[in-house]
Amino acid sequence: MSITPIHHDALATQLDDAINNKTKPLGSLGVLERLAKQIGLIQGTRDITITKPAILVFAADHGIVAEGISAYPQDVTWQMVENFLAGGAAINVFAAQTGCALRVVDAGVNHDFGARDGLTDRKLAHGTRNFAHEPAMSHDLCQTALAVGAALAAELEGNVVGFGEMGIGNTTAAAALMHKLTATPVAQCVGAGTGLSAEGILHKQRVIEAAVAKHAHATEPLEVLATFGGLEIAMMAGAMLKAAELRKVLLIDGFIVTSALLVAARMQPAILDYCVFAHCSDENGHQQMLAALDAQPLLNLDLRLGEGTGCALAMPLLHAAANFLKQMATFESAQVSEKSE
Amino acid sequence: MSITPIHHDALATQLDDAINNKTKPLGSLGVLERLAKQIGLIQGTRDITITKPAILVFAADHGIVAEGISAYPQDVTWQMVENFLAGGAAINVFAAQTGCALRVVDAGVNHDFGARDGLTDRKLAHGTRNFAHEPAMSHDLCQTALAVGAALAAELEGNVVGFGEMGIGNTTAAAALMHKLTATPVAQCVGAGTGLSAEGILHKQRVIEAAVAKHAHATEPLEVLATFGGLEIAMMAGAMLKAAELRKVLLIDGFIVTSALLVAARMQPAILDYCVFAHCSDENGHQQMLAALDAQPLLNLDLRLGEGTGCALAMPLLHAAANFLKQMATFESAQVSEKSE
Repeated sequence: MSITPIHHDALATQLDDAINNKTKPLGSLGVLERLAKQIGLIQGTRDITITKPAILVFAADHGIVAEGISAYPQDVTWQMVENFLAGGAAINVFAAQTGCALRVVDAGVNHDFGARDGLTDRKLAHGTRNFAHEPAMSHDLCQTALAVGAALAAELEGNVVGFGEMGIGNTTAAAALMHKLTATPVAQCVGAGTGLSAEGILHKQRVIEAAVAKHAHATEPLEVLATFGGLEIAMMAGAMLKAAELRKVLLIDGFIVTSALLVAARMQPAILDYCVFAHCSDENGHQQMLAALDAQPLLNLDLRLGEGTGCALAMPLLHAAANFLKQMATFESAQVSEKSE
Repeated sequence: MSITPIHHDALATQLDDAINNKTKPLGSLGVLERLAKQIGLIQGTRDITITKPAILVFAADHGIVAEGISAYPQDVTWQMVENFLAGGAAINVFAAQTGCALRVVDAGVNHDFGARDGLTDRKLAHGTRNFAHEPAMSHDLCQTALAVGAALAAELEGNVVGFGEMGIGNTTAAAALMHKLTATPVAQCVGAGTGLSAEGILHKQRVIEAAVAKHAHATEPLEVLATFGGLEIAMMAGAMLKAAELRKVLLIDGFIVTSALLVAARMQPAILDYCVFAHCSDENGHQQMLAALDAQPLLNLDLRLGEGTGCALAMPLLHAAANFLKQMATFESAQVSEKSE
């Protein structure tokens, strides 16, 4: 895959002019102006559109749960997938509200769903192995997950794709990825996840510290992903890389989704040009992970739910960016006087 | 008018239980959970609804513009009102996108529009007087503006009302109100407004400092409002007080709208129970003004456009709060295992 950087001086100037001629003080739409310009550069046009936005929710299980690093039992992964299919989870509610199509992908849940309406079955294993003892995935399995994710992204009709996840234990995987790929001390990468106590968080930190010491040889992004990642994280990373190659807008959710992007960005740094960061999560470590990517999140709502909920909640801001550029009058068209100073 | 504080222990407990039983980690919807609870307490029910949300945009002119405190000429006030009526302003775009009815009120614009579809004519004067020399309004005119605003709020069908404004010079009025009502030094209350240079900001500061020295006797909220306020600010304050009395959710926009609330809150502190703060503006002083009200804004998007644009952009978050409480499954209904720790 090859991702093209979006820099384009002539178009950037045209977009600045179009934004600045709207009937508003210069720069007064703040973040929405930067967003409109970025979308324009991604789409290669001043006529930006948000077409058929979708959120892909990848679910998988994690062998590391055997180490007691989550507040919830592993069964919650499949139970929440059932909840997605029944329409009862937060992501169902917010995606429906904000007009996002939702696609739920079984990347590797430790449960047999059978053929089910609304579930995209891409199960590659019944969860990863326990990285406290052995790599979570083989190199081949990890490569397959990336390729399957890429194929899913290639099927998308729309031009904006958000990413979400479900997987008990996956903040532990994400924290290990963050530590390995940003050199942030483990203690600063570890958070409460779904609701660990202070003691539980310390245990999670110790589990990760022992595992990274054991797998100290893993340093390349793909090797790090295979060793500590999850099938949902790997599949997401593959989907992100493909979506950027196809010049879609990537909407990045919280801690786990950003860890998948971190892997993808270490492989192809130009992917960051295509990323809109939906929110800064309340999960400890997300703020620093975003800073490591020089990312400016749209929302700060103390969310720490995952599922892509931040993406769905940020979607109206993408529409707002497209809409003001498309629909607002210019000083000339509205015959409004310009600045007198 | 009498505004009832919203504290209600039994209902608060019921709302907490309803929120906590949803299929998500405890507290993981962050700000949206606090919002759902506040709306429930305002509406006095666990079955919260967002019905016919509206944004009232009040426009008026300011005599203080004679002192050269704005980057734009006074004519921009009426020209932007025309832009609202034609549907070309940012607030038109965002209100349409997020399903807010828009009502544009001429509170005191220095221009004769004649009878116009879509314009609510409540003009009380062709702008205020220049408070560098004399009070902006008489006591009676200010009282009338409050009463007219209250009557407008009483006409609203919906249960959520956002507030917006248009008025060249009104950041100067708002800064003076902030200084008088919070004792913040004028330099910290003054910002670039629609785009003043550093020199222009300093001049604006000097104009306000001279005016507050001249009118040092004005200390009571109503007297401060009459002396430094605008007709749009006074009418808005009246509408806010009535809307809170009627137990509507008040959605507060940026620097000028918050200054109107500041006046209202000094008159009836319980009004703050009814307020949702849409965003923290990029206008210097807004952050401190919000802090003076102990307000937690939903959005931080560096907006400084006014018109109620922040309210429109925040409206999807109010819907999200109502929707998750209404639509999400509970652990029991979805048969999802609870926390094991």
